[in-house]
Amino acid sequence: MVTLGIIGAGRIGKVHTESISNYVKNARVKTIADPFMNDDLKSWAKAMGVENAVTDYKEILADDEIDAVLICSSTDTHSVISVEAIEAGKHVFCEKPIDHDITKIKQVIKALEGKNLKYQVGFNRRFDHNFKAVKQAIDAGAVGEQHIVKITSRDPEPPSPEYVAVSGGMFLDMTIHDFDMVRFLTDSDATEIYVQSAVLVDPAIGKAGDVDTAVITMKMENGAIAVIDNSRKAVYGYDQRAEVFGSKGMVATSNDTASTAVISNESGITGEKPLYFFLERYMQSFATEIKEFVDAIENDTEVPVGVMDGLKPVLMGMAAKKSVEEGRVVKLSEIEF
Amino acid sequence: MVTLGIIGAGRIGKVHTESISNYVKNARVKTIADPFMNDDLKSWAKAMGVENAVTDYKEILADDEIDAVLICSSTDTHSVISVEAIEAGKHVFCEKPIDHDITKIKQVIKALEGKNLKYQVGFNRRFDHNFKAVKQAIDAGAVGEQHIVKITSRDPEPPSPEYVAVSGGMFLDMTIHDFDMVRFLTDSDATEIYVQSAVLVDPAIGKAGDVDTAVITMKMENGAIAVIDNSRKAVYGYDQRAEVFGSKGMVATSNDTASTAVISNESGITGEKPLYFFLERYMQSFATEIKEFVDAIENDTEVPVGVMDGLKPVLMGMAAKKSVEEGRVVKLSEIEF
Amino acid sequence: MVTLGIIGAGRIGKVHTESISNYVKNARVKTIADPFMNDDLKSWAKAMGVENAVTDYKEILADDEIDAVLICSSTDTHSVISVEAIEAGKHVFCEKPIDHDITKIKQVIKALEGKNLKYQVGFNRRFDHNFKAVKQAIDAGAVGEQHIVKITSRDPEPPSPEYVAVSGGMFLDMTIHDFDMVRFLTDSDATEIYVQSAVLVDPAIGKAGDVDTAVITMKMENGAIAVIDNSRKAVYGYDQRAEVFGSKGMVATSNDTASTAVISNESGITGEKPLYFFLERYMQSFATEIKEFVDAIENDTEVPVGVMDGLKPVLMGMAAKKSVEEGRVVKLSEIEF
Amino acid sequence: MVTLGIIGAGRIGKVHTESISNYVKNARVKTIADPFMNDDLKSWAKAMGVENAVTDYKEILADDEIDAVLICSSTDTHSVISVEAIEAGKHVFCEKPIDHDITKIKQVIKALEGKNLKYQVGFNRRFDHNFKAVKQAIDAGAVGEQHIVKITSRDPEPPSPEYVAVSGGMFLDMTIHDFDMVRFLTDSDATEIYVQSAVLVDPAIGKAGDVDTAVITMKMENGAIAVIDNSRKAVYGYDQRAEVFGSKGMVATSNDTASTAVISNESGITGEKPLYFFLERYMQSFATEIKEFVDAIENDTEVPVGVMDGLKPVLMGMAAKKSVEEGRVVKLSEIEF
Repeated sequence: MVTLGIIGAGRIGKVHTESISNYVKNARVKTIADPFMNDDLKSWAKAMGVENAVTDYKEILADDEIDAVLICSSTDTHSVISVEAIEAGKHVFCEKPIDHDITKIKQVIKALEGKNLKYQVGFNRRFDHNFKAVKQAIDAGAVGEQHIVKITSRDPEPPSPEYVAVSGGMFLDMTIHDFDMVRFLTDSDATEIYVQSAVLVDPAIGKAGDVDTAVITMKMENGAIAVIDNSRKAVYGYDQRAEVFGSKGMVATSNDTASTAVISNESGITGEKPLYFFLERYMQSFATEIKEFVDAIENDTEVPVGVMDGLKPVLMGMAAKKSVEEGRVVKLSEIEF
Repeated sequence: MVTLGIIGAGRIGKVHTESISNYVKNARVKTIADPFMNDDLKSWAKAMGVENAVTDYKEILADDEIDAVLICSSTDTHSVISVEAIEAGKHVFCEKPIDHDITKIKQVIKALEGKNLKYQVGFNRRFDHNFKAVKQAIDAGAVGEQHIVKITSRDPEPPSPEYVAVSGGMFLDMTIHDFDMVRFLTDSDATEIYVQSAVLVDPAIGKAGDVDTAVITMKMENGAIAVIDNSRKAVYGYDQRAEVFGSKGMVATSNDTASTAVISNESGITGEKPLYFFLERYMQSFATEIKEFVDAIENDTEVPVGVMDGLKPVLMGMAAKKSVEEGRVVKLSEIEF
Repeated sequence: MVTLGIIGAGRIGKVHTESISNYVKNARVKTIADPFMNDDLKSWAKAMGVENAVTDYKEILADDEIDAVLICSSTDTHSVISVEAIEAGKHVFCEKPIDHDITKIKQVIKALEGKNLKYQVGFNRRFDHNFKAVKQAIDAGAVGEQHIVKITSRDPEPPSPEYVAVSGGMFLDMTIHDFDMVRFLTDSDATEIYVQSAVLVDPAIGKAGDVDTAVITMKMENGAIAVIDNSRKAVYGYDQRAEVFGSKGMVATSNDTASTAVISNESGITGEKPLYFFLERYMQSFATEIKEFVDAIENDTEVPVGVMDGLKPVLMGMAAKKSVEEGRVVKLSEIEF
Repeated sequence: MVTLGIIGAGRIGKVHTESISNYVKNARVKTIADPFMNDDLKSWAKAMGVENAVTDYKEILADDEIDAVLICSSTDTHSVISVEAIEAGKHVFCEKPIDHDITKIKQVIKALEGKNLKYQVGFNRRFDHNFKAVKQAIDAGAVGEQHIVKITSRDPEPPSPEYVAVSGGMFLDMTIHDFDMVRFLTDSDATEIYVQSAVLVDPAIGKAGDVDTAVITMKMENGAIAVIDNSRKAVYGYDQRAEVFGSKGMVATSNDTASTAVISNESGITGEKPLYFFLERYMQSFATEIKEFVDAIENDTEVPVGVMDGLKPVLMGMAAKKSVEEGRVVKLSEIEF
């Protein structure tokens, strides 16, 4: 039985608490901390079987009974709390990204050195049933040598310009998941990145200094060419697909829908739109990633998404940004680390 | 090179003429006959490379150069002309049904006795790419022992009450193709038939003494249970599907569409309706059935759909009618032949 | 908050306990009873948050704190315990079927008379996301007047001959769900039933006096013709589909799969098989049916599947059996009630 | 009635001859010329209804009865014969590409100046039922403002190294069709091109100085980002898809198959591979493009794919080559014209 503390009771903190309570048999959440702790949150926590609901996350770090923490606070606090938690001897599950600033990620890496602590990063899509099935088919040899890897990742609604301003930009906020997916599916790293991007969804996003539409091409170390297409707004819902093509064949996934019902009438043959919201679409993956984190602690095995897996997509995001700024192909080796 | 005469220049007579001209390299249509021959028809025939366009089909029967005739005249003349053509020494391709009256079909069978003449019946759907692929999969062992055979056959528009009145009823006019399909896919005959039917599409069809909606269950000699569902009107177009289920698996076909284009938007994910009209849906099959007829003549091999294949579905249609009239299961052995 | 007792800790009793614990926020399971209660079951119950694990279900009936019971014991005890629970003033959720014997179902109906107690029957498929989507489309007018209703229901593995012997036969054991589905989708009752059936999967099932393959045709009060096709063994997994066709269009569902991954290679384009096991396929529906039962108690509203909904499919099953025995169409009015 | 001469009786010359004979009612092929004319070709031509089969194409140019020529000879002769034909007063249908050398294309453009002659280039895919349906949906407003355009184009088999050596390279030989498709679907021109490419299929292609795998990103004048992915070898067959995504939705096509038959068994749910060969896949489009060419002559209307449409994809191919050679984004304005 692994005892957990959760730092941050926002949307994702709640999702983890609920899915641990429902699905992760060998873990319990002892304490949840949030600077904006209130009565509603407290009674919700109680209903979830959480013993303590506190304001200061340091109470969690100071609690010897707690084996591991989940860092679900705002992005700018991830790396600092990571270091503190590691120094307090806790295993850490940290939501993505560890930080937008590589120096800070380095501090986390340094803090981990010589310590036998697990550090997992929240790239939940690796645990999604569809993408996992693609990976399993690849590992079973269905693709052979990889030639072309394609990721489609389009949000149902653009973020507010306020959010955009603090998000680190689309590549570090949204594409970062897709960069991780490319690494996951190829078991390989990118060596070059080129981005063609535009502001086509909302001019306010452009004013905030970001883009909302992009096609990102990468050369991978395994020889494959990878391409991600991103949009901040697909009117038909959350579009999340992957296609891996190679010498022996192709594996591809399409979207999940709420049902398989299809209506045939004078207007055509119409099925349901993709699940609209990332929490619907990826709910099961949030439980699975924590299960694997807890199992890795219990069995002292490697976590499935380690700190270097947290770093690499940030480097890719920085290369992507540079490619847009300079209108050219950027080698990953140009990104200082 | 096989020389053909075509009797009847209505819709199906024209379809055969055109597809022979385009696709059947080892045949030519020398003469086409129609009692309502006119200038338009004549110039159309000329454009098709047909030498003669005449009023009296007996000119075709009397022409020694003509090896075979296609009987595309009205249903009530099929059996009479069949017998005359056989007696004139012609191979015969006869549109379905040979007749609604079994006595008359018997006369055709009798006329064929002792003659080395080909007699093929126009059950074109056996030659359709989809149904042929199902049959090939069955023959390759994909289904194993057959357990359940399902045919969905729904028209896009009901016939006029005038047509219904002379059609012989839905079972002999429309279901007859599905009876043939069941026989084709099972390589077997029905022993019992039960029909549950209704008038749900158009009350005028009921007034004309017919039904427009039916589910027909059959026990087959190979042990399988077959079921056909028919409707005279599917608002989404011509619905033509088959599913064969057995000990080793299932083979199923869906409908053909004009394109694979799919539109995703706020209303859902919408593909095209099935091809609406039987001539679009089955055009290729009309050419193929004639090719095989011509090849059987050239090589003196068996025709793919013989006179007994023309008879059996008529017997099934009569059993179906009796089942509706008497509200009970009818054994095929009850139908006098 | 509704307090529940669960009678029977076999497979389905456990499923309900777990899904209530995970998903039904306004209910708690206080006591679970099973004649074969043992230490394993006890510690499982504890982990599920169940206060008491007892041998004698009468402890549940005697407990004034318990508002409602879930009857998950063996089929032959359903009706007796139902009556006892009703007399003890408990709301009842009873697994299907209430009984194979209509007299005993009548006793339950009688026991309910004049009491303000909820009685729900476990036809869980009505709560499945796919079938619910079909029903919603129907209720939204997508089908118009119903003409043809088709249910495909095939198990992945046949039951053992021992089970068959006590099952009440395929129609009361397996088809009963499909009879309920037909009633659910049509909002209507059957007036006539005809069955064409066979023993094609396992001769031992035949020796046990049952069939394993059937096509069941029904005339419905709303005018539609319904047809169910059943097999005890589909090698490709659990095949659960519905299609409702009418004057304005068609709504149809296909199977659920574990993922949307598709492999394209030299052998073809291959997707996943349907979910194999009914617990995988219908897991979510078990939680939803209990949620609605608990809500009906809390709000004193009607249960979604009442005692008459429990009775009608049994009558249909008996008509189906009679149809097989006598080789004829059976009117529902012939089944004594 | 338009009278045609066909120059070149290789594969594509034959395809055009046959489809004109079968489908193009208002045209006839009077003469076919090929330097390797032989008896087989002559008897084939006769069977097709072609009056003359000659060695020297100049006989066609000299024949006053011939209104238009189809240039189906080897690529290096396209531009020269185009100019000669134009000077002889013939309308021209020229197979793609007009030339690999822009200077020569310019000579054709110059030759056309001031002459009222039709000049159509053989980008047949615009006439394919799937891509045409995508375009029609776009024109009907289904996509809104275009954001991302994706083309997948993969061949079933790589060409021989000998062919590669004279092909002009993958971008001018294969991708040129996809460049045209991007222009067709966007009604717009590219302003920038970036290529990430590799030799992954066959090292011999690399030795011949070419690539066999590529992802090509383009900025379009209409604001959209377009991306093509190419492979010289897809083991599952000829993969030809398009997807256009924008402010109002997405339109996408999948591949054509020989049938809709699907086999369900213990290995999964398997449908047919895409049609393997470009002649199967695009046969209908060859007839349609000639129909429209002939109609444009008869009605003196604009041809659907003019000489500038022949030039632009060559410019794009040159930009793509330059991008590979220099490892950078190339502006179309850099390509001299």
